[in-house]
Amino acid sequence: MTIADQVVFGADGLVAAIAQQHDTGEVLMLAWMNRAAIDETLRTNQVCYWSRSRERLWRKGEQSGQTQRLVALRLDCDRDAVLLLVEQAGVACHTGRRSCFYLQADGAELHEIAQPTVSREQLYGGA
Amino acid sequence: MTIADQVVFGADGLVAAIAQQHDTGEVLMLAWMNRAAIDETLRTNQVCYWSRSRERLWRKGEQSGQTQRLVALRLDCDRDAVLLLVEQAGVACHTGRRSCFYLQADGAELHEIAQPTVSREQLYGGA
Repeated sequence: MTIADQVVFGADGLVAAIAQQHDTGEVLMLAWMNRAAIDETLRTNQVCYWSRSRERLWRKGEQSGQTQRLVALRLDCDRDAVLLLVEQAGVACHTGRRSCFYLQADGAELHEIAQPTVSREQLYGGA
Repeated sequence: MTIADQVVFGADGLVAAIAQQHDTGEVLMLAWMNRAAIDETLRTNQVCYWSRSRERLWRKGEQSGQTQRLVALRLDCDRDAVLLLVEQAGVACHTGRRSCFYLQADGAELHEIAQPTVSREQLYGGA
């Protein structure tokens, strides 16, 4: 029995996965994994998700170089959520911010609490 | 326009929400919120989820007393995930552990990396 065999996936075959920087505790992003993504992540120690928009495996950093090295993989009490402790290379967010969670509720408005530290051109190449 | 108006919910009307202890950075749990849960959480500053199993609003701690006071609510870049920074009273997990993420992959096995600090009887009353 593998680890993936012990995960309770949703009807869509996916499970929510939180990526957290292992030493600082910063929550970097939330994405989705299927069975193959979990298997590959544990085999290679490089985090691989399932991209719902592209409908394919998404090796984090494959385009941008902003990879996530796996430090530990945890399941919750119901085994239907994953916590990935990672070493994040550079930034996690496609906007160039360290964390994807940069929109904070302030009354009825969302305020940006972090700015990009890397440009999209640096991440994905210029036009 | 409210904060909930700016959230991108799934087809089921739900969004994944991560609860993180605001000062230590510990990831406590992952649960689900609908529009009403977000509205109530922001109105009361006490975290309220949507229970998928019970199909009703779930005021965290309503039975156990282990409430979560909201410190900040953040959305991610796609506005389809929520990060709740909270002050957790006692333990987050129904097993009596501080965090729900206590099962760590070690080869093909899951090892418990934390033990309960509160009994189920203390949380939910004895038989």
